Amino acid sequence: MARIVMKFGGTSMAGIERIRSVAARVKREVEAGNQVAVVVSAMAGETDRLVGFCREASSLYDPREYDVVVAAGEQITSGLLAIALQAAGVPARSWLGWQLPIHTDDAHAKARIGSIEVDALNASMAAGEVAVIPGFQGLSDDGRVTTLGRGGSDTSAVAVAAAMKADRCDIYTDVDGVYTTDPRIVPRARKLNKVTYEEMLELASVGAKVLQTRSVGLAMKEQVRVQVLSSFTGPEAPMADTLPGTMIVGEEEIDDVERQLITGIAHDKNEAKITLTSVPDQPGAVSAIFEPLAAANINVDMIIQNIAHNHGSTDVTFTVPSADLARSLEALNQARETIGFAELVHDTRVAKVSVVGVGMRSHAGVASTMFTTLGKRGINIQAISTSEIKVSVLIHEDETELAVRMLHTAYGLDAADAAA
Amino acid sequence: MARIVMKFGGTSMAGIERIRSVAARVKREVEAGNQVAVVVSAMAGETDRLVGFCREASSLYDPREYDVVVAAGEQITSGLLAIALQAAGVPARSWLGWQLPIHTDDAHAKARIGSIEVDALNASMAAGEVAVIPGFQGLSDDGRVTTLGRGGSDTSAVAVAAAMKADRCDIYTDVDGVYTTDPRIVPRARKLNKVTYEEMLELASVGAKVLQTRSVGLAMKEQVRVQVLSSFTGPEAPMADTLPGTMIVGEEEIDDVERQLITGIAHDKNEAKITLTSVPDQPGAVSAIFEPLAAANINVDMIIQNIAHNHGSTDVTFTVPSADLARSLEALNQARETIGFAELVHDTRVAKVSVVGVGMRSHAGVASTMFTTLGKRGINIQAISTSEIKVSVLIHEDETELAVRMLHTAYGLDAADAAA
Repeated sequence: MARIVMKFGGTSMAGIERIRSVAARVKREVEAGNQVAVVVSAMAGETDRLVGFCREASSLYDPREYDVVVAAGEQITSGLLAIALQAAGVPARSWLGWQLPIHTDDAHAKARIGSIEVDALNASMAAGEVAVIPGFQGLSDDGRVTTLGRGGSDTSAVAVAAAMKADRCDIYTDVDGVYTTDPRIVPRARKLNKVTYEEMLELASVGAKVLQTRSVGLAMKEQVRVQVLSSFTGPEAPMADTLPGTMIVGEEEIDDVERQLITGIAHDKNEAKITLTSVPDQPGAVSAIFEPLAAANINVDMIIQNIAHNHGSTDVTFTVPSADLARSLEALNQARETIGFAELVHDTRVAKVSVVGVGMRSHAGVASTMFTTLGKRGINIQAISTSEIKVSVLIHEDETELAVRMLHTAYGLDAADAAA
Repeated sequence: MARIVMKFGGTSMAGIERIRSVAARVKREVEAGNQVAVVVSAMAGETDRLVGFCREASSLYDPREYDVVVAAGEQITSGLLAIALQAAGVPARSWLGWQLPIHTDDAHAKARIGSIEVDALNASMAAGEVAVIPGFQGLSDDGRVTTLGRGGSDTSAVAVAAAMKADRCDIYTDVDGVYTTDPRIVPRARKLNKVTYEEMLELASVGAKVLQTRSVGLAMKEQVRVQVLSSFTGPEAPMADTLPGTMIVGEEEIDDVERQLITGIAHDKNEAKITLTSVPDQPGAVSAIFEPLAAANINVDMIIQNIAHNHGSTDVTFTVPSADLARSLEALNQARETIGFAELVHDTRVAKVSVVGVGMRSHAGVASTMFTTLGKRGINIQAISTSEIKVSVLIHEDETELAVRMLHTAYGLDAADAAA
């Protein structure tokens, strides 16, 4: 017997027919002898509808009341799935966030889970009931409804799995796993059988939108084995424990044979490049630039400070999320006197391409392979940043697909090159 | 300063524009110096949508999970009204059924309120906040969501008013008060300024669908002053304490000048008449008829046992709700051997017309006026039943409107006849 958490997204809950399919999928796991808790999202479109009501009621809505409104979406689907499971002959009951409870802080609309009480849940599951838990919601210390922010149901599922010491947390999504890169760009991209938490964090944060980033961080901290699976729920779908998806695990679970130098190639076109020209080359100049951006809560990513010009000034280039570009320019212009730059130049036609892999920790030459590969095709590198398990470059947006394809081949990731 | 409960139905909550109008109406009461709790229904149509989901998921849905699903409708509107009130500059917060809590029994989908804890509510209102409370929902002793049955928000409002010792419970509805009879039948029907709980119970249970019957019974028990008002919420609407609607009060609050012999005329076409012919005229015969109906949970209303025939048998006639007719006939046919009737005859083309008024307690002749008035126009009376404050007759359905008009005039209820 295994204890598993199964998580289904909004597409899987969109209408009673689909909820019935989910119930059938859960039933198979129960009949295989497993203890199961299911975490559900709201019906596709429902959260948008409820958020729309709140915004229409007031652009400055109270996040505490917003949480009361939007938490209703998952409440509805959890009750409906419990009904559908019972109709399929599977004992089941819903456990709302406040009933377990799932304790969170009071950062309404973006709360973080503190702890989950599982005594009642364990008793119910031991008695043979499937527990159906609405994702996305919790309870603050002063007894109010909280929600975790968009995509928060992934985090709910991982937190429930950690609390009930589940053997596995299966996340059913629109994709059937995590790939070496975006299969729409590289048809020969391979589904990964396993990926480490660290790699998944880097792949997710640079654009592989399979799981909410926070849920991966939590899984890493709590050592929860997370599996990404296709939400295709027909009777002929393979059982989840036969590994049809991608398992996200600790590095120690990946043995040397499986380990690749590079696990995947990610890209992100939602970056914008900003350059300040002729900034005085003196102590404090750089902090004068980044302080106003930090004050505006804008995340600066890649930073390059060019070699000083002869006349004691320098150019500073960095990237910010495209969505924050206008606010960034405004903040910098307001600080123009303090910073003392000549010109403020920006470019949204850039993309960040990253190669990710825990294997590079023990191998030199990853970065130089990247630069050589791109250089051969005349792709100009505008900025570089590196971490222990990632090398990223900033290039012209138009060259994104070309760069991803070249790198996918160069690191031996194409399907025909790799072991199954 | 008065403490008041304001209750708004689904039509008033159907969309943000209307919720904003409700907020404006609440704001006027707050600015007049009142402490206010608001009880809200779900958006019009929302409960039907959620009930539809449950039925689609399983015709035999678990009522505990049904309650989880349908309670979401009022949760949504309570959060939205709190946001709209804040946007109008009125401090407000929502209190869900489980947060106060509103304790109920565990008769899911038709629960009854036991008690309501009001300490937190009182503190919040004393601090100047409007409390927004979802109607229809509560919490069972084992910590699960319950709902009160359709129309239950009226009962929630009265129960909250009783618990917080409110001076008044204002129920905003699609009509602007309780009338002497249905104004669609009698254009000269008058709006009543006051009506007693007992009269309202009789008027509601025989067809004047303004308030859920249970809420009136609770108001009577708890001596809550209930006011029925139009939900028209424009700025020119009169303040609620200037009595534009109908106040439902104890008999002692209606002085002799105001008291009418008859308060109103009600009618109900949802009755069906059943006659069993040639039933043995012997002890136990009648209970043999009504036991199987009671076992099937069918309410029998008017009963007539005719004078015994010469050959020791009798005919028994009674009415049941039209919706229960098929089940009634089935139950009686199954008990045919035991009862020993010759024929089972039914007629759905009947109507019950009732005259209601506490004044008849001290006046004889009310029933005879009724019979004489109907007899003059050749309206045949098929059955009669009476209570302390009501006389009902069963007539042919086609004569309903005629009978109501004749009686309305005969008892001096027409607008031109009466004092303002």
